[in-house]
Amino acid sequence: MKEKTIGILGGMGPEATVDCYARIIKNTPAKTDQQHLRVIIDSNPKVPDRTSAITGKGPSPVPILLDGCRTLQAAGADFIIIPCVSAHFYLIEIRQHIKLPILSIYDAVADTISGDHPNIKTVGLMGTTGTISGGLFQKRLATANIQTIVPDDVQQTRVMAAIYDIKNSRPSRSRKQITSDLVAVAQSLVSDSAQGIVAGCTEIPLALEQQHLSVPYFDALTILARAAIAEAGLTPVP
Amino acid sequence: MKEKTIGILGGMGPEATVDCYARIIKNTPAKTDQQHLRVIIDSNPKVPDRTSAITGKGPSPVPILLDGCRTLQAAGADFIIIPCVSAHFYLIEIRQHIKLPILSIYDAVADTISGDHPNIKTVGLMGTTGTISGGLFQKRLATANIQTIVPDDVQQTRVMAAIYDIKNSRPSRSRKQITSDLVAVAQSLVSDSAQGIVAGCTEIPLALEQQHLSVPYFDALTILARAAIAEAGLTPVP
Repeated sequence: MKEKTIGILGGMGPEATVDCYARIIKNTPAKTDQQHLRVIIDSNPKVPDRTSAITGKGPSPVPILLDGCRTLQAAGADFIIIPCVSAHFYLIEIRQHIKLPILSIYDAVADTISGDHPNIKTVGLMGTTGTISGGLFQKRLATANIQTIVPDDVQQTRVMAAIYDIKNSRPSRSRKQITSDLVAVAQSLVSDSAQGIVAGCTEIPLALEQQHLSVPYFDALTILARAAIAEAGLTPVP
Repeated sequence: MKEKTIGILGGMGPEATVDCYARIIKNTPAKTDQQHLRVIIDSNPKVPDRTSAITGKGPSPVPILLDGCRTLQAAGADFIIIPCVSAHFYLIEIRQHIKLPILSIYDAVADTISGDHPNIKTVGLMGTTGTISGGLFQKRLATANIQTIVPDDVQQTRVMAAIYDIKNSRPSRSRKQITSDLVAVAQSLVSDSAQGIVAGCTEIPLALEQQHLSVPYFDALTILARAAIAEAGLTPVP
């Protein structure tokens, strides 16, 4: 089978884009350059803030997202992934205008939890305020019979502050302090009966890792990267 | 001034492409996603091995490199950088066919050494066998009155083995062992009177850092990333 070219609609944020591509490389079975997959990236950080848009406080990101999809299509991508969970709020609208298949990070996460941990029936979801209030991730998990617990408003403010600090190349506090805040929120979700934690924002895995947690951790960014490798025609490394 | 869009002709190897973009992000003065630069990447690892081509043992990479440049041009890049030093052997040929400006990593390194360390008159160059035998990097440094010392054949074999191991996602030895080999070569160049070491291959900085060396270290990849930020219209962070 001919390998497919992966299109990454990136820039949301740029660091998550780099991290997504790094995870594709790391999970690709390759010993030489030539065994790796072709990847085309449009990393346009000028996309308006997704959380502001979803919560009705800012302009829609859809026009720039559509531009990016068209750029990737013209450049030769065979399908698209979007390493920004919040942007998936607009996936249905985007798909109405773009012919190229777009993988959904919601689908990839739901399939991975159901497939690898069929005993997990309740997860804690950590993401942007846009993702949490948009509610689409929770809906998709519910179709796989997975219930979702989300942080309360105070905890959610801490998660959102952590995400913006990770995006900031000169944050006011150390990465360790950010991690500590995210761990506290995750632990409180586990106390509330979450059997697993979903890093439902592509910035969160940059500061929160499995080693920090006592329950299975589902890093949406790695899951999406592995889904992209499979869609392109290769088997991700174990 | 309107910011320019950076085009990265990548995939040689994929890890160096990721690292190049990560260095652009890290060196960009930005506190939010929107303050970052737009970057378009065509990462096509199917480009034939550059060292094989330069040493007459394999097909030319130029046709695929031209395809990539045209893809970036059509996608909206304002200029191109190539995070692969070996591929610069073909830069004159590529420029004959591509209208978009292409920054030269040779120029960026020569300008940085002359500007920041005008006292340095001799550097040790570590790169692929293609880059070393091609001789163009040495020629360009000579026009800036910088003499170049290169590893002898035995040492060069160690450098090349290290580079291929870095490209291999399942190398036969640890990154620490690779670093140890590169440090030994660098030290021998310093013994031969090199006043600085140039990491003249985008894989080398993934294993060799300033902390390993007693003389100034010029990481071509970081230098290229900072040159790209400046060309795009921003001032790289100090």
